Amino acid sequence: MKLFDVDTVAQAKKKLVDFIGTDFLKTEIIPVDSALGMVCAEEIRSRIDVPGFLRSTVDGYAVIAKDTQGAGEGIPAFLKVAGEVLMGQQADRPISSGECIYVPTGGMLPPGADAMVMVEYCEPFGAGDVAVYNAVSAGRNTIEQGEDTRCGAVIIEKGTVMKAQHIGAMASCGVNEVCVFKPLRVTVISTGDEILSPREDIQPGKIYDINTYSIAAMAETYGHKVIEKAVVPDQEDLLFQTFQKAMAESDLVCISGGSSQGKKDMTGRLIDQLASPGVFTHGLALKPGKPTILGYDESSSTLLCGLPGHPAAAVMVFELIVMDALAQLQGRREPIYVYADMEMNLGCDAGKTNCIMVKLLPEKGGYTARPILGKSGLISVLTEADGYIVTEHNLEGIKAGETVKVRLFR
Amino acid sequence: MKLFDVDTVAQAKKKLVDFIGTDFLKTEIIPVDSALGMVCAEEIRSRIDVPGFLRSTVDGYAVIAKDTQGAGEGIPAFLKVAGEVLMGQQADRPISSGECIYVPTGGMLPPGADAMVMVEYCEPFGAGDVAVYNAVSAGRNTIEQGEDTRCGAVIIEKGTVMKAQHIGAMASCGVNEVCVFKPLRVTVISTGDEILSPREDIQPGKIYDINTYSIAAMAETYGHKVIEKAVVPDQEDLLFQTFQKAMAESDLVCISGGSSQGKKDMTGRLIDQLASPGVFTHGLALKPGKPTILGYDESSSTLLCGLPGHPAAAVMVFELIVMDALAQLQGRREPIYVYADMEMNLGCDAGKTNCIMVKLLPEKGGYTARPILGKSGLISVLTEADGYIVTEHNLEGIKAGETVKVRLFR
Repeated sequence: MKLFDVDTVAQAKKKLVDFIGTDFLKTEIIPVDSALGMVCAEEIRSRIDVPGFLRSTVDGYAVIAKDTQGAGEGIPAFLKVAGEVLMGQQADRPISSGECIYVPTGGMLPPGADAMVMVEYCEPFGAGDVAVYNAVSAGRNTIEQGEDTRCGAVIIEKGTVMKAQHIGAMASCGVNEVCVFKPLRVTVISTGDEILSPREDIQPGKIYDINTYSIAAMAETYGHKVIEKAVVPDQEDLLFQTFQKAMAESDLVCISGGSSQGKKDMTGRLIDQLASPGVFTHGLALKPGKPTILGYDESSSTLLCGLPGHPAAAVMVFELIVMDALAQLQGRREPIYVYADMEMNLGCDAGKTNCIMVKLLPEKGGYTARPILGKSGLISVLTEADGYIVTEHNLEGIKAGETVKVRLFR
Repeated sequence: MKLFDVDTVAQAKKKLVDFIGTDFLKTEIIPVDSALGMVCAEEIRSRIDVPGFLRSTVDGYAVIAKDTQGAGEGIPAFLKVAGEVLMGQQADRPISSGECIYVPTGGMLPPGADAMVMVEYCEPFGAGDVAVYNAVSAGRNTIEQGEDTRCGAVIIEKGTVMKAQHIGAMASCGVNEVCVFKPLRVTVISTGDEILSPREDIQPGKIYDINTYSIAAMAETYGHKVIEKAVVPDQEDLLFQTFQKAMAESDLVCISGGSSQGKKDMTGRLIDQLASPGVFTHGLALKPGKPTILGYDESSSTLLCGLPGHPAAAVMVFELIVMDALAQLQGRREPIYVYADMEMNLGCDAGKTNCIMVKLLPEKGGYTARPILGKSGLISVLTEADGYIVTEHNLEGIKAGETVKVRLFR
């Protein structure tokens, strides 16, 4: 299966989603406190009413509201103190008209009581009575049973990336375990006779590996599990073996090669040899990011990505195509963008989606987006950028002062 | 040491920084591929020139630029092919005038050569010659040694939170290990006779723990290590023991109690008993977040935080005061905010900093910030908010349509 026409970003993403299908993503049930950063694979419903009882929001006396009618600063209502509810204890003694019971903040109101009077409005009066200088209506200074969350109510939508506060919310609703999308097992391979592992001594004609490090780290920021990072020389038999092993062990194999014509062809050839249906996208209408190859192997359920050798392109293609297609299957919400004013005029390659790395400079009331240019400052592009602009397919340029939408790096 | 005047957010943060001092933060050296999400504790400098040699950006022939002078579509320059440089190999045979040598994209130019002619402009011509239909100037289609990054140049500033691309950049510059701020060992305690661990069955008058879960998870999103999460009843002796143990083992102890007066006093009393100099902030001019207590123990170097019981307040105080004060000591850059249009008029409590949880609704060209209100919807506040607005200290209100600065949840 060979397609030499380049795909748009949207086409490639759609093909990817169609080829891998919803079965590609597996789910697993994990303890709530291990779910940070994971993507929720089900609607989470509260297992209880929160609170589970009529609860006081103040320190004071639980009353029957109508007993306080007419009370005020000069005219107290007199109520008999019929006991005290201890924190965390069931209030089992009901309250009768003319009575009140002390309840601390967060405590349970006794049966029959329907409001709280703050202790500041109450004064001991004679033996076992209090003078109440405040008229309260029913419900005052209390939270009803289930007022915060009802048992069975959805508290977290499917596709939510779990943040700290979601973990807390689940705990508070009696949810101990949560079904999340299982992290993909990822192998990242760099090919090239010129690529050295950073652990080796530098040699003339060679450069250190960058893409296995940045792609592996990005896979980790999306919650996936990198099982192997490999640097492989440009020998087709060696690459074949590495690929074959990776496909058996991984859900996602990323290979980034150089950009010489021979190398690009080799990745595509290998995917077609090893995988069926094989390559479905051969080139993207994306700048930078054209030499991207996407394939799929149905029998092993492995997604195969030939990423561009250009380090910034590799990172953006991985996020824009691979992670975003998975996001679609997971039902994940769009990321939150930062809108900024473009600092300078910039021409775009019309007929392509252009990705422009930018640094965000704080201004009064917003940000200015400064494109990070330079024909070869590949490393500074990576270290200085806060995010990138993704242009519409047919945009010819961006004017200085124009509002641009910046996707932040995670 | 007792201070009953509340502090502003800025005052509390300043005191915290002054009390703990720069020695509080320890550093450690870790492998680059373990540094994701950690905060860089030193300037990172490249250990090599990148690239380490004059490198081709195209497939083609290395030439001496002036040999191609005058060449063009109709008038080729004829050069003798003196060999081929293999990918990743040293180009040791120098080039002489009238010669060219084949070099693949990414390959090393031979000594003497100063430009590349793309293969598309070359044509084999007779025995061992090529006809070159393109005049190139010196440097054309090449990257100079050190052009991307010079050996010794700073590639990552101190205080940078390491993202995927930083990991890649370090690898590419021969940096294998990096000095980062050591994660704090954190203990999170919830107190209250009414607090149940979510693993227990719900009981009348009780509620499930929320704050140890959300605070522990937030500490983790900031790269810290939670060593203990505990729920302790309101018994001063038990709390004393738990605190004492936590102080011996942790760098940061967070305790969140209920909001009844007795409980707030207990936390402060315990900190003063166990720690010296003890409590330095007793109450914040922050809404919500007033019942916040901060203390320090010099001998064990433990930071002690009594967080408000209100779940949203606990999360925001933890981030705004504790994590941000640490950020200041680490030299971390301010987070990137999202500017949005306020959806409705909202009154603020002047004389306090107000934190307003908001949901961001995408609009054309930006976001609308919808405040998440409700007297008791504590759980929905946590699950629906994308972030929060932090008002200036003396702001009386925000008008509908006004631009607000939203701090995103991590």
